[in-house]
Amino acid sequence: MGPGDHATATEQDNAYQLGKLIAQQGWGLLTGGRQAGVMNAASQGAKAAGGLTIGILPDNNTDRVSEAVDIAIVTGMGNARNNINVLSSDAIVACGMGVGTASEIALALKNGKKVILLTDEREAQQFFLSLSPENVFLATHPQAAIDLVKVILTS
Amino acid sequence: MGPGDHATATEQDNAYQLGKLIAQQGWGLLTGGRQAGVMNAASQGAKAAGGLTIGILPDNNTDRVSEAVDIAIVTGMGNARNNINVLSSDAIVACGMGVGTASEIALALKNGKKVILLTDEREAQQFFLSLSPENVFLATHPQAAIDLVKVILTS
Amino acid sequence: MGPGDHATATEQDNAYQLGKLIAQQGWGLLTGGRQAGVMNAASQGAKAAGGLTIGILPDNNTDRVSEAVDIAIVTGMGNARNNINVLSSDAIVACGMGVGTASEIALALKNGKKVILLTDEREAQQFFLSLSPENVFLATHPQAAIDLVKVILTS
Amino acid sequence: MGPGDHATATEQDNAYQLGKLIAQQGWGLLTGGRQAGVMNAASQGAKAAGGLTIGILPDNNTDRVSEAVDIAIVTGMGNARNNINVLSSDAIVACGMGVGTASEIALALKNGKKVILLTDEREAQQFFLSLSPENVFLATHPQAAIDLVKVILTS
Repeated sequence: MGPGDHATATEQDNAYQLGKLIAQQGWGLLTGGRQAGVMNAASQGAKAAGGLTIGILPDNNTDRVSEAVDIAIVTGMGNARNNINVLSSDAIVACGMGVGTASEIALALKNGKKVILLTDEREAQQFFLSLSPENVFLATHPQAAIDLVKVILTS
Repeated sequence: MGPGDHATATEQDNAYQLGKLIAQQGWGLLTGGRQAGVMNAASQGAKAAGGLTIGILPDNNTDRVSEAVDIAIVTGMGNARNNINVLSSDAIVACGMGVGTASEIALALKNGKKVILLTDEREAQQFFLSLSPENVFLATHPQAAIDLVKVILTS
Repeated sequence: MGPGDHATATEQDNAYQLGKLIAQQGWGLLTGGRQAGVMNAASQGAKAAGGLTIGILPDNNTDRVSEAVDIAIVTGMGNARNNINVLSSDAIVACGMGVGTASEIALALKNGKKVILLTDEREAQQFFLSLSPENVFLATHPQAAIDLVKVILTS
Repeated sequence: MGPGDHATATEQDNAYQLGKLIAQQGWGLLTGGRQAGVMNAASQGAKAAGGLTIGILPDNNTDRVSEAVDIAIVTGMGNARNNINVLSSDAIVACGMGVGTASEIALALKNGKKVILLTDEREAQQFFLSLSPENVFLATHPQAAIDLVKVILTS
């Protein structure tokens, strides 16, 4: 999960690496599916490593789907689809920060899911750790996020 | 908006006052609808002042609806209903903080809505102000929140 | 429930009468909320008799809301909002027929709700009676639909 | 699409064959995802032929997912997920009939999608043909449904 249209270059680099590492683990990658920002970069990275990519679209058609998405789920329900993103994921990595990403993290925690923050934004780290210290983990680079996902999946 | 089962006494007191003040303005009150925490206290306050209360329930029935809700909307979509809560509101007041409340604030900001934080939790204030400084407002007591809603509604 | 943009004059007349009769019973009227067809006519009828009208909109804003809707619920989830319409209703009257209306009837029956068909379309009557004979009722005019609702509400 | 818990043996046989033929075409199969009736039989058939299976679950967890589903999308939105099923499909085959299936056909038609009815229930055929003659097609056996899907995909 991560920003779409307002993603920074660093966030997109991290997302690309993360997608690649996820595919190399043999895991499926699930994103918000659009041809923008972190969603697109992560999907591109996963495809570069031969992975399977799933995109949960907010729109009621596939006009804005990333070219790197294999399986497009068309929800037609706008940002409410963020709840489906997190319910359908075994572990959630937030790559960067924004209002949409914050909603996904909060919905994930509300649904009892564990979340890894791959961001150096202090306010976000402090806020989500204060909300749910046992379910929030910090990662400083993509490989650290993968290592934390492994811990989550085996716990 | 605010915590349900984990709401503090202060959060519920503020919610009750807020509901009362909202009704006294002649406004409708919309909450998450359950017989718990801030949702219930705000609805009770609004009814005490003769107001109209709307509750957007996460369940697929009305078993958990607050007795103080006049109009129950049964969504059957769990926490994804939080997006409906904020889309249907002209202004959003977050009374207290928790993972569900955080998701509503983030979804409100994602949808371009303005949000008033009636909470003294520093991490929440700093995080949401960092995310969306132009759409986040701080209130220290219920009447201050009402005054800010008036500014929002006329801007 | 009933057709929007493709409603016939008869369907709209029936909807207006139905809305009026619902309000005269002191019941709330819930529709799909748009300024079109049966939704709009029923809401107009209810307001003419001093009733309370609720509209569950498919859009993510209120641009297309009927002027006769008191309380607009903004779902932003397109036709999936039809499930909320029926979950939130104590009894459902289908006033006319179309693909959207058919989805509401089927979702109502799927959720165990009773449905009154106020339409003379034989194919619709025969199909829904074959699907769910114990939960489908036929009415030939608005007052007959109201009488059936009373039976449903007290059963 | 088709009945879950109330599917007949014939409906399940047809669904299994249909899943197999879909996989042999190299297409992905999307169903409602549960370990029941047509959803499960179609997924089993597709896996027997080495296909990829996607299941859109109504629940907020995977407890009831079919063993033959590769990719489970967890919506947590009950029957409203039927709208996602049809929005995410390039062509829809209704294998058998029931209230849930009827809602999917109606939602598909509402969203402008084409639907193939693989059922011999006369009332269903006549009703949906009366609703949307240009978008409803009848098939008498699984291979006929596949042939119609090919026509739809190339039109």
